[in-house]
Amino acid sequence: AEIVVLPGDGIGPEVTAAAVAVLRAVGERYRHRFTLHEHAIGGAAIDACGEPLPEKTLTACRYADAVLLGAVGGPKWSDPRAKVRPEQGLLALRKALGLYANLRPVRPHPATLGAAPIKPHLLSGVDLLVVRELTGGIYFGDKTRDADSASDVCRYSVGEIERVVRRACELARRRRGHVTSVDKANVLETSRLWRETATRVARDEFPDIVLEHQLVDSMAMHLLSRPRAFDVVVTENMFGDILTDEASMLAGSMGLLPSASLGDERVGLYEPIHGSAPDIAGRGIANPCGAILSVAMLLRHSLGLALEADCVEQAVSAALDAGVLTADLAPARAASTAQVTAAVLEHLT
Amino acid sequence: AEIVVLPGDGIGPEVTAAAVAVLRAVGERYRHRFTLHEHAIGGAAIDACGEPLPEKTLTACRYADAVLLGAVGGPKWSDPRAKVRPEQGLLALRKALGLYANLRPVRPHPATLGAAPIKPHLLSGVDLLVVRELTGGIYFGDKTRDADSASDVCRYSVGEIERVVRRACELARRRRGHVTSVDKANVLETSRLWRETATRVARDEFPDIVLEHQLVDSMAMHLLSRPRAFDVVVTENMFGDILTDEASMLAGSMGLLPSASLGDERVGLYEPIHGSAPDIAGRGIANPCGAILSVAMLLRHSLGLALEADCVEQAVSAALDAGVLTADLAPARAASTAQVTAAVLEHLT
Ligand SMILES: CC(C)[C@H](C(=O)O)[C@@H](O)C(=O)O
Ligand SMILES: CC(C)[C@H](C(=O)O)[C@@H](O)C(=O)O
Repeated sequence: AEIVVLPGDGIGPEVTAAAVAVLRAVGERYRHRFTLHEHAIGGAAIDACGEPLPEKTLTACRYADAVLLGAVGGPKWSDPRAKVRPEQGLLALRKALGLYANLRPVRPHPATLGAAPIKPHLLSGVDLLVVRELTGGIYFGDKTRDADSASDVCRYSVGEIERVVRRACELARRRRGHVTSVDKANVLETSRLWRETATRVARDEFPDIVLEHQLVDSMAMHLLSRPRAFDVVVTENMFGDILTDEASMLAGSMGLLPSASLGDERVGLYEPIHGSAPDIAGRGIANPCGAILSVAMLLRHSLGLALEADCVEQAVSAALDAGVLTADLAPARAASTAQVTAAVLEHLT
Repeated sequence: AEIVVLPGDGIGPEVTAAAVAVLRAVGERYRHRFTLHEHAIGGAAIDACGEPLPEKTLTACRYADAVLLGAVGGPKWSDPRAKVRPEQGLLALRKALGLYANLRPVRPHPATLGAAPIKPHLLSGVDLLVVRELTGGIYFGDKTRDADSASDVCRYSVGEIERVVRRACELARRRRGHVTSVDKANVLETSRLWRETATRVARDEFPDIVLEHQLVDSMAMHLLSRPRAFDVVVTENMFGDILTDEASMLAGSMGLLPSASLGDERVGLYEPIHGSAPDIAGRGIANPCGAILSVAMLLRHSLGLALEADCVEQAVSAALDAGVLTADLAPARAASTAQVTAAVLEHLT
């Protein structure tokens, strides 16, 4: 399999190196041929060639089976008046590859209950999967700016909503059969279209799925007060961005969470949900688990290697069980990125 | 003082009745003349006269010193294809009165630590004030809808941003002097304008205030992992809607939280941040504290009665200390709305 690796900025290169080490180990153990190609994206690409998503990077991604990404962005490139920004590279890549469904699973681990701000009794049994729409909405609508004002347009078509809701329902079928669709239908026109469309898709195509609707503001509350109540959560781009960062607190740290961005083609983009964390970049202390678990998602969703994926997830779980935790989870007795990676490799069976 | 009371829908009439009882008691105790005028809004107004904000209601509000509102909305009026919706009444009222700054204080109380999903050690000392922009952004932008798609426009002018940031900075001056401005400047044009404008206003007009910027997704996380770090938080309409419902979990229940919506005129709108809660409406079990504490904000911000406001807040605090808690806070030994109201009245000194 051909895999493109995009380390990106900040801690991106550190966590991707860890993830690549695990990917290579899986390849050796199970005798798969993984060919890795490294390319530039984000701030690193701006520095190298003036644009956040160079043609060469995009072409490599188009022909790959999967893309593994670290993170993009950082203060160096975030002057508000800058013409090119690292984030544009990531957004353009998601769009160009048609990756409309961003899967963000959240499953708290016993070893991280101490680090989570949420009370432990609320967390046992929590197992949710947020499916965030990733190529539409206010992220990609027309933008205007003049001296006196600015605007962003949020637009959704029926087709954009249908396909991501369908994906969420399919995923729910293999889980507990419950989908929560999140919108702000009491205020937004796009949300009313979202709600109608989700209702119709579920009714006509997924009679076996239980669909409920939540307003985004209540959802921000219920995610904390009764996280066990949710199975698959499907929502639009901006709400998904906010709710998944919030939901990461159920798992104790953003640093633990992986994601998969999928479209209708084989190629998927896999990245931890955390950012480039410039404050800790280069110090070898970043949590590599989100990136490593993204490798598990890559194996499962783009390469069809479910057994190997399980194996990576179990190895991460075993490393956490063994108490090998980075500073985000255990400030007082923190392991380094390298130590956590070594522990995961050790538990890889 | 002339006070308009808008009970609205669901539990709105129940919690407003409690708040009015407290307001009347304050009037008697301190010999103030409060003249109350009740009017229809939301679903109740749709039922009575076909529109969610009748002319008569709006006129009464314009001439009042303050408006006390319960909540609007409910399943009865939320068919997605309905032409008039209860929420439109509330949005139109906020807009018509020019109430651009929505103050939502969050201060956890010792008696409610048990009900909060957040670990108690994170909550001691938490005292934050969210200032949500309330008359702009995607709530009020142009909307389109056709068979195949829908859109909502988010627009902000420099002036709209300046005035709410100014208000936040003024409030911070009387607190701990710290303002966190929340946006999504790495993606949205409106957020870049927001960030630039906030930076300029703080630098030019409030050199004594420390301003920091946070992206909305990280903020959703930091609100939970380090809530003590924030003093005044200022943000745009939609982000403020989501973040304040999330922040309410720090206080244990939405039912406890009041809000004040202010503009440049004397008249302010005071309402609990909770919704109409149709599932528990009419059962006499709703938490009246959010509405009662909204009366405290009304006394302070529209009537200039700071002493009386403190007095109401202390009475609510004393009732909570005494363990008189509604079902949202103490499901096993719940007091009714009437019992909590009686306890507050009893502690009013
Ligand atoms: C970097 C940024 C553009 C991105 C987003 O908002 O989508 C990030 O926050 C994420 O969630 O992947
Ligand atoms: C009822 C609804 C329109 C309203 C809003 O979104 O502003 C409510 O959620 C609030 O927060 O006051």
